[in-house]
Amino acid sequence: MNDLHHTCQWGTGKRWGSLDTETGMSRLSLSDSDKKARDWFVETTMALGCSVTIDEMGNIFAIRPGRNVGPPTCVGSHLDTQPSGGRYDGILGVLAGVEMLRILNERDARTHFPVGVVNWTNEEGARFPISMVSSGVWAGEVPLETAHGLREVGGGTATMRSELERIGYLGSVPASHTSMPMAAHFELHIEQGPILENHKQKIGIVTGVQAYRWYTVQLTGRDAHTGTTPFDARADAMLAACRMIACSHDLAAKHSALASTGILTLTPGSVNTIPGQVKFCLDIRAASDATLETLEAELKAEFSRLASKDVTKGLDVSVTWRTDTISPAVDFHPSCIKTVRASALSVTGDNSLFREMVSGAGHDSVYTSRHCPTSMIFVPCRNGVSHNPEEFTKAEDCATGADVLMQSVLRYDHL
Amino acid sequence: MNDLHHTCQWGTGKRWGSLDTETGMSRLSLSDSDKKARDWFVETTMALGCSVTIDEMGNIFAIRPGRNVGPPTCVGSHLDTQPSGGRYDGILGVLAGVEMLRILNERDARTHFPVGVVNWTNEEGARFPISMVSSGVWAGEVPLETAHGLREVGGGTATMRSELERIGYLGSVPASHTSMPMAAHFELHIEQGPILENHKQKIGIVTGVQAYRWYTVQLTGRDAHTGTTPFDARADAMLAACRMIACSHDLAAKHSALASTGILTLTPGSVNTIPGQVKFCLDIRAASDATLETLEAELKAEFSRLASKDVTKGLDVSVTWRTDTISPAVDFHPSCIKTVRASALSVTGDNSLFREMVSGAGHDSVYTSRHCPTSMIFVPCRNGVSHNPEEFTKAEDCATGADVLMQSVLRYDHL
Ligand SMILES: NC(=O)NCCC(=O)O
Ligand SMILES: NC(=O)NCCC(=O)O
Repeated sequence: MNDLHHTCQWGTGKRWGSLDTETGMSRLSLSDSDKKARDWFVETTMALGCSVTIDEMGNIFAIRPGRNVGPPTCVGSHLDTQPSGGRYDGILGVLAGVEMLRILNERDARTHFPVGVVNWTNEEGARFPISMVSSGVWAGEVPLETAHGLREVGGGTATMRSELERIGYLGSVPASHTSMPMAAHFELHIEQGPILENHKQKIGIVTGVQAYRWYTVQLTGRDAHTGTTPFDARADAMLAACRMIACSHDLAAKHSALASTGILTLTPGSVNTIPGQVKFCLDIRAASDATLETLEAELKAEFSRLASKDVTKGLDVSVTWRTDTISPAVDFHPSCIKTVRASALSVTGDNSLFREMVSGAGHDSVYTSRHCPTSMIFVPCRNGVSHNPEEFTKAEDCATGADVLMQSVLRYDHL
Repeated sequence: MNDLHHTCQWGTGKRWGSLDTETGMSRLSLSDSDKKARDWFVETTMALGCSVTIDEMGNIFAIRPGRNVGPPTCVGSHLDTQPSGGRYDGILGVLAGVEMLRILNERDARTHFPVGVVNWTNEEGARFPISMVSSGVWAGEVPLETAHGLREVGGGTATMRSELERIGYLGSVPASHTSMPMAAHFELHIEQGPILENHKQKIGIVTGVQAYRWYTVQLTGRDAHTGTTPFDARADAMLAACRMIACSHDLAAKHSALASTGILTLTPGSVNTIPGQVKFCLDIRAASDATLETLEAELKAEFSRLASKDVTKGLDVSVTWRTDTISPAVDFHPSCIKTVRASALSVTGDNSLFREMVSGAGHDSVYTSRHCPTSMIFVPCRNGVSHNPEEFTKAEDCATGADVLMQSVLRYDHL
């Protein structure tokens, strides 16, 4: 916990409590503060005897040698945060990995094969708008050129490649599972939802990840005066957007899915001008790819209807969709799930204190699972809140999670 | 028309056609381009023999002496535009006034009393968010301190006072109807709506202005992860805002009123974070103050309901309202209306070519009408479109309007 809070001096965010550690984080990927956190990670893991490799996506692999040569069993997560995020999402997973290295060294432990800790670049997708993009390149699912060319959100001109270069983390090793193979990947993460807390449980054995997709929807109507333009002469892009966002919620609810809009921009942006242009993002999620496919089709049909003059009772608004991310549903590997369950039982000694669950959020483990056995470990977080400065997990819960993580790695190495 | 397009070199906006004059305007109040247009207005009217007075709000009064001393009969409008506006809204009214001065000089005409042309500051309310704020100060309806302290929209730090100072238009004469009294105020303006065009008519005799109010609505929910936060654990400020904006449209329609949202901002602004904070503006309009009063009350009740957990089926979202503008319905002065009607008949020779109408938009004439007989003259604009770069009125329609304007001034001066 000392290390975790120490590294949170880089990108400290909004204060919510009176203690030094009671702030959020704002450490966007490849920013100056991300560079400092990365430098700390490299120095610390090298001092702990690891060899450190940086690939073309800035992914950092710190590998501790084992008795035999071969692919390492890794723990991985990310040091980047949301613009207004917390101290645990991603950070806990990497720091628990560093703690594992420290404990292995203190005990002078020798594993059968190497073990490692990975910091994946831009997991959040908050600055460069594809989440888990660098584990995606490693997995061969996102082309390197697409990832390098990703432009930062909010109208800036920086790309992933230019920022990797700027902060000195554009490595030369190919970002690929063939160059940097792993025996297995375990990830400790806060749940980011309310289930463990509601059940007073300490550990989630993550069996898979729900499917999700991100879109950008662009509406074009006509700028016009708010006071002189009757409803029947309007093409009000803002009104249409509002009806679509409300509709996305209702359709998602019907399918027990989720829908959310986190970004909306409009032009021209004047109190007495009806916006002619509105752009918003849409994030939809469901347990199965099939449900998401159905929901997408229904949303496309409904949005077209809501934009047509049948509904606007004025002029047509035009709608275009762009798909930004498709993250299919994932089932983690039975042997990793079994390993985590055994470790959870061994650490907590009480099988009412853990449960199997499906992750609502995407994680780098989604992509590692394509090329090596993978699973995850969740710990509770206060009020189920994440992507919020007040995100909080008790030190003892972090420790329980870190214990289960280390045991999982050692059990898997033994396997 | 030459003068009008000449002055549109300052703040030229988006191109929509191939001719030099086929662009919109972007001349925000008290910007560098507004300063240049003002400088032209001052030089030109002084060269035409006017005495020029600048008051504490930067309102510019160009007065041409008459045979007798006394309050001038004025024409007035504004040289500022929307961020993405056109070449006619406001500009036509001021330039038609300059043309009147030129014609009176060419004919060596002597009026009974002085006549004048006024450029009112920040009519649009697009940069400093109170429309007609400077005629409002002149009328004693907006306190000088409120107006001077108005901060530009979009998070900048400039105030009206700081910008008046910066561009050299902070005059020393009090902005007041007692310091600068007027005998009457006539304003030529584009209709900004579709009625004249739909009826193939050339002149609108404006008998009054509908009531309108502007609000800022602020919603506070809770930032949370889009993938891990079930609907029943959300306080989604964005979803609540969308339901409110859709609802404002429906309630306004029920009352034959208008409702529009032209600005919306949210935080934190990340694809996978549910926005915890949303702020949007609401512009509502109706023929009578009573209707607007009823609509406001219904909106407040409905927005509270939409923000409550009964409707969100999750957590409560909190709502606060701020009233930014109250512009009551206005009836213009019978003698001015009569003068405009007589002039319209004399210019067009055909009473099927003009009609009486109520303005949907506010104008500086709303405020002048509190302290001197006032009315307005409308000319048609293509497709009824305004607050849009493509705003367009044919040169011959501008000329007809300018003729009716000058005749109205001369008839009133005679009266
Ligand atoms: N864990 C997390 O916040 N991942 C980002 C990708 C997602 O939105 O699910
Ligand atoms: N004419 C005009 O656009 N005035 C601005 C005030 C309003 O929105 O009605």
